[in-house]
Amino acid sequence: MTPTTLDTLIQLLSRLPGLGPRSARRAALHLLKKREALMLPLAAAIEEAAHEVKACSECGNLDSVDPCSICRDARRDASQLCVVEEVGDLWALERAMAFKGRYHVLGGKLSALDGVGPEQLNLAGLLRRAADPAVKEVILALGATVEGQTTAHYLTDRLSNLPIQVTRLAHGVPVGGELDYLDDGTLTAALKARRPL
Amino acid sequence: MTPTTLDTLIQLLSRLPGLGPRSARRAALHLLKKREALMLPLAAAIEEAAHEVKACSECGNLDSVDPCSICRDARRDASQLCVVEEVGDLWALERAMAFKGRYHVLGGKLSALDGVGPEQLNLAGLLRRAADPAVKEVILALGATVEGQTTAHYLTDRLSNLPIQVTRLAHGVPVGGELDYLDDGTLTAALKARRPL
Repeated sequence: MTPTTLDTLIQLLSRLPGLGPRSARRAALHLLKKREALMLPLAAAIEEAAHEVKACSECGNLDSVDPCSICRDARRDASQLCVVEEVGDLWALERAMAFKGRYHVLGGKLSALDGVGPEQLNLAGLLRRAADPAVKEVILALGATVEGQTTAHYLTDRLSNLPIQVTRLAHGVPVGGELDYLDDGTLTAALKARRPL
Repeated sequence: MTPTTLDTLIQLLSRLPGLGPRSARRAALHLLKKREALMLPLAAAIEEAAHEVKACSECGNLDSVDPCSICRDARRDASQLCVVEEVGDLWALERAMAFKGRYHVLGGKLSALDGVGPEQLNLAGLLRRAADPAVKEVILALGATVEGQTTAHYLTDRLSNLPIQVTRLAHGVPVGGELDYLDDGTLTAALKARRPL
């Protein structure tokens, strides 16, 4: 039996992260109920994004323009460069509206297990950009995981010969978090980095 | 600020059931990483399905052909008609491979709260099909909810003048279920309908 149009659609939808076979079927039924309002616009948006969206040759962000709208924005502080693992991390920082500098997307983190070495990351671009005299600080906004921290150490080492400050995000109690639910590592870090009121 | 191609894509993806804003962003990033293998095929599949898949004029199932492949299949038992609320229910029964007759999709269930009366359901089709001399039994495979049961009572009443048997799915302990976790209604129903070993 050859798969029908519907089978193909469900199979492809089920390959999206967050959708299993069951929710892919629900999504397909939902789409078919809203053909004009959702289904056709979604098909068009996916195709348009597939052709238009590209990685920024400067920072690695995804955008329809290259350089991306953040790299183009003259109001962004060129003295701060925030290094993130993935584009999703950049988006999270942008949503928080907490950072007004520029970004650099590594495209991953060092991981011997996954075979990711320095040559698999966008490191050459970072070294080139960090050497720009305008840059005063490189903020390593990497995950607080073993691999994230390994990457941070490696980058600190590679950037040490430049006349810039290298910083990392603070560890501590997440805002809204309850102490009772926090792991020992976070509690220890939060206590160590305590601040006067 | 006008939304970018990427914003539009994420916004449309987040309208799929099972995907919130966060998972829609993850899905968009995942798609952009697999443009050739997943993104473009998905856009094509959605568009093809939007144009090709239609409701079967006989039973209401969704398929690329009309009548649908189940209604066309001469090996299916024409004497049994299984009434379901939605196409998803039909698919669930097909996956279980437990039924070899034909289906009828009502397209919903009676619900005063949601303003669904008999005229909103595919009832005329059911009465016409149930009156076919080949049909001997109508199986009401409706949800064991108040609305499902209301619909079942209403259908039983409407079908009562036909020389056919009207049955419903059994209530009881779900296969693999533990008694301890079952609600009172299910336990009572399972006990009432107990069977000799």
